[in-house]
Amino acid sequence: MTPIALPDSLVDHGPGGEKIVLVVLDGLGGLPDPSSGRTELEVARTPHLDALASRSSLGMSILVAPGITPGSGPGHLALFGYDPLEYVVGRGVLSALGVEFPLEPGDVAVRLNLATLDGDGRVTHRRAGRPSDEEGKAIVARLQSSLEAPEGVEIFLRHVKEHRVVLVLRGAGLEAEILDTDPQATGVPPLPVRATSPGSEKTARVVEGVLSQAGDVLADEAVINGLLARGFAQFEALPSSVKDRFGLKALAIVQYPMYRGVARLLGMDVKEAPESTAEIPEMLDRSLGDYDFFFLHYKYTDSRGEDGDFSAKVAAIEEADSLVHRVSELEPDVLIVTGDHSTPAAYGAHSWHHVPVLIASKWARATGSEFGETACRAGDLGTFEAKHLMSLALAHASRLGKFGA
Amino acid sequence: MTPIALPDSLVDHGPGGEKIVLVVLDGLGGLPDPSSGRTELEVARTPHLDALASRSSLGMSILVAPGITPGSGPGHLALFGYDPLEYVVGRGVLSALGVEFPLEPGDVAVRLNLATLDGDGRVTHRRAGRPSDEEGKAIVARLQSSLEAPEGVEIFLRHVKEHRVVLVLRGAGLEAEILDTDPQATGVPPLPVRATSPGSEKTARVVEGVLSQAGDVLADEAVINGLLARGFAQFEALPSSVKDRFGLKALAIVQYPMYRGVARLLGMDVKEAPESTAEIPEMLDRSLGDYDFFFLHYKYTDSRGEDGDFSAKVAAIEEADSLVHRVSELEPDVLIVTGDHSTPAAYGAHSWHHVPVLIASKWARATGSEFGETACRAGDLGTFEAKHLMSLALAHASRLGKFGA
Repeated sequence: MTPIALPDSLVDHGPGGEKIVLVVLDGLGGLPDPSSGRTELEVARTPHLDALASRSSLGMSILVAPGITPGSGPGHLALFGYDPLEYVVGRGVLSALGVEFPLEPGDVAVRLNLATLDGDGRVTHRRAGRPSDEEGKAIVARLQSSLEAPEGVEIFLRHVKEHRVVLVLRGAGLEAEILDTDPQATGVPPLPVRATSPGSEKTARVVEGVLSQAGDVLADEAVINGLLARGFAQFEALPSSVKDRFGLKALAIVQYPMYRGVARLLGMDVKEAPESTAEIPEMLDRSLGDYDFFFLHYKYTDSRGEDGDFSAKVAAIEEADSLVHRVSELEPDVLIVTGDHSTPAAYGAHSWHHVPVLIASKWARATGSEFGETACRAGDLGTFEAKHLMSLALAHASRLGKFGA
Repeated sequence: MTPIALPDSLVDHGPGGEKIVLVVLDGLGGLPDPSSGRTELEVARTPHLDALASRSSLGMSILVAPGITPGSGPGHLALFGYDPLEYVVGRGVLSALGVEFPLEPGDVAVRLNLATLDGDGRVTHRRAGRPSDEEGKAIVARLQSSLEAPEGVEIFLRHVKEHRVVLVLRGAGLEAEILDTDPQATGVPPLPVRATSPGSEKTARVVEGVLSQAGDVLADEAVINGLLARGFAQFEALPSSVKDRFGLKALAIVQYPMYRGVARLLGMDVKEAPESTAEIPEMLDRSLGDYDFFFLHYKYTDSRGEDGDFSAKVAAIEEADSLVHRVSELEPDVLIVTGDHSTPAAYGAHSWHHVPVLIASKWARATGSEFGETACRAGDLGTFEAKHLMSLALAHASRLGKFGA
């Protein structure tokens, strides 16, 4: 089964030459500020995005389905042409891939939070006061050297970032239908490790053992003395890579581990993480000759939306405008700017609202001179499912043949 | 198989608290009056719908597929999240459910019209001059007591409304692939009962016998002396209820039997039929604390469209505006107004044209200040398949979790 209805015979698997850049502004879509009736993207001063819009096909995209709020994994899978209702990749797997852990099919991965528990075993801080990367790494090293793997299962522990850790289990008879132990609240103990299918009971026992051992190892720590598990997931490789499906040699220039994991899952090369937003276009410039397709990711539009801070999200969008400006100066043949979901500041979380899309190329059918929800709603692409975005990208790059005679 | 792509794990099956009201204005969509260029909905004075639109996400919905004119059954199934191309519920079944007949899986139901035949057996009136309910009931009682069931099949006859009757057959070896006997014309005899599959031949024989016996019983009647069969259908319960699928305790406040049948098929509680439109919001008010979801149905927008009377349809829409006003005064968290298909007065029948949709909630992305085809076409929801409406309703009620990490 093909992930989208894109017949392989149409795809140009040759060396290409046309450059496609996809800039994902995480959580881009918003809701209007009641005082102005304009969204974050519409309020932001974005001269470069607006100039780009005036030579772009605009539209609104549906990442999963109407009314469905996408997680970051499904949102990105959709952008890269995988129907996220068919290909489900869990948080644990994305986190493991994000730290470049070489997952094998059948591995079960789970994200752990370093946490603080009180003397009675109740959670007092779900992120252990957000430790530094150094503190986090030190604790993980201590745990990794102490933990014993039961029932013939291998266990691997990797630090991700700050309080974020990923645990991978490898062995026979593992499945991942297990509920989070993170109670999503303080003042209560972690939830038990509970399997929701008989096939996952061994995994649950092993994880329970690991968490219990970790509690003993960390008993003398005041702050980081507990682990909360969230997002159990079993790894299965996707049936084909961006290269196989779209004939694109692809590079990801991405800062955050989880999105690096998505890129790796899709078979892209992944550059070292840029240290700042300003570094992203510099890295792009240096690699432009070596690849056909570039996935650039900007996180802060989502973070400020999650914070519920309209003005801060506006400021993040204005920073993204500069990023896009420097990317457009490199004159890729196709430049796409969109998001993986909406994160309206008013809602303070991912939401189901459609997401603005801009495709700048010499084959665009332009309809407006502003990049925003209102202009995109009236755009030439209409409201479409994001899983078709890669076909549109290839078409605008003249890399897709005619279907039928 | 789930009827739409709504993973069950996202659905909040808890007690909720948010109230969702869906007002179906039957046959809402229209065609422009050539003199004004505005549709029935756009010509009607609808201050309350317009006020609601200004705080709503607007869109246009496709009930079945582009170009496909929905019957009332499929139109409603789509609104409640069942792909009507996959779940086909025939008129006979909907009619039987509408009169609260306790259908069992495998039953075959068919709608009968009381009709008038001349001395040569030709149809002179396909609805027997639209008898009163009393006349209709009396004839049905007379038939029920006289008819004999052949070949081990049980038969049940129920009066629906005026000339409308439903016949249910129960027994082994029944199927419902049988053509209507209603010739859709006068001056010609009824068509024979013709099975279009071998498995339906027994059913056809039984129905032929019932119609022939009925002719003998009614031979002395001048007006109601024949029966025309239309809409053979076999009952299969839907795989899951509104409660199971959407976690909603649902109540239908609906006047017409067929739509009551739809509600029952979907596992909703069904209130006694309101005696007037004015009674609908009163009944809603009294039940608001006891349910999460309310299906309200208003018939006359369709009836006046079917009459081909533009002004009368405008007047019906204006009555519906008052209904919606009184509903909105009860301040449900999510208020949806739409139709199950278009019935343009100019067309004088159900049509395939897209149908305006309004979703009022605090999470709406509003784009206009009028409820009409023009405003909805430019709305934030775009043109979407009606089968996603329930996901949107749940999302706007904050009753739907995030999909994936």
